Amino acid sequence: MDANVKKQVLRQITYGMYVMTAKDSRKIAAGTVNWLSQASFAPPLIMAAVKADSSLKPVVESTGTFVINVLSASQKQFAEDFFRTAKVEDNKIQGHPFKPGTSGAPVLDDAYAFMECKVTDKVDRGDHTVYVAEVTEVGQRRQDKPLEMWDTGWFYGG
Amino acid sequence: MDANVKKQVLRQITYGMYVMTAKDSRKIAAGTVNWLSQASFAPPLIMAAVKADSSLKPVVESTGTFVINVLSASQKQFAEDFFRTAKVEDNKIQGHPFKPGTSGAPVLDDAYAFMECKVTDKVDRGDHTVYVAEVTEVGQRRQDKPLEMWDTGWFYGG
Repeated sequence: MDANVKKQVLRQITYGMYVMTAKDSRKIAAGTVNWLSQASFAPPLIMAAVKADSSLKPVVESTGTFVINVLSASQKQFAEDFFRTAKVEDNKIQGHPFKPGTSGAPVLDDAYAFMECKVTDKVDRGDHTVYVAEVTEVGQRRQDKPLEMWDTGWFYGG
Repeated sequence: MDANVKKQVLRQITYGMYVMTAKDSRKIAAGTVNWLSQASFAPPLIMAAVKADSSLKPVVESTGTFVINVLSASQKQFAEDFFRTAKVEDNKIQGHPFKPGTSGAPVLDDAYAFMECKVTDKVDRGDHTVYVAEVTEVGQRRQDKPLEMWDTGWFYGG
């Protein structure tokens, strides 16, 4: 398999962009993710792949919960803010205010929609971990258009 | 959790559209899928959720292989053709010509890019099965733009 063709073909997959947040007794973790999809209607499940060396992984696995914050088309900078290791100050993560969701994991005030999730299954394979998780709570603050990776000029995939 | 809000929030997830094909000793199965994402760089893995009652499931599971055919922005009708149960006639599926890939699973001639995949893990949960699968062969026939679900007016999610 040609490595360049493999990269090009895998980059034909379409993605949105989201910030995953989690909190255990020691710390808050957060990061931008795009490898995410629904995985069942009933119960409502999603699947998300998280880098095996991400600071999110131990926090997600100690609590079994995380939040998916949906970014809007106007929030490219917001997505970029969460490329770096999460820093929490003054009840803000990377400068973005949040409140605890029902599980305790942070829900970002400026995300136009969010899903609170409870992990049901995981697959440790390759350089990421796939979490299958039930959506246990949701919120939508306004109508908006989601941020699409195509429109950012970035790629995470290939 | 409010059922309408849940549906609306889950519909904020961004998707492309693909045709999954598979073949075992008895039959060829094919269907449109959108719950699909990359899941690892090394090895290159994807994850895809397939309806538990889909005709794809037994065929994928008997061989452990499938093909993801990537549709282009101009192939909305092509996607729709594969909403119905796959019918194979004259070396065509739903009227679309194909050739066997290296695993034997059909690669559709008119897909501008494709990935041949070998299942490594599965999660049976809810009304779909999540397959994690290694990309073992790829091809890209031309530069094109992928079909996005947003542009079709259809939803599969919520």
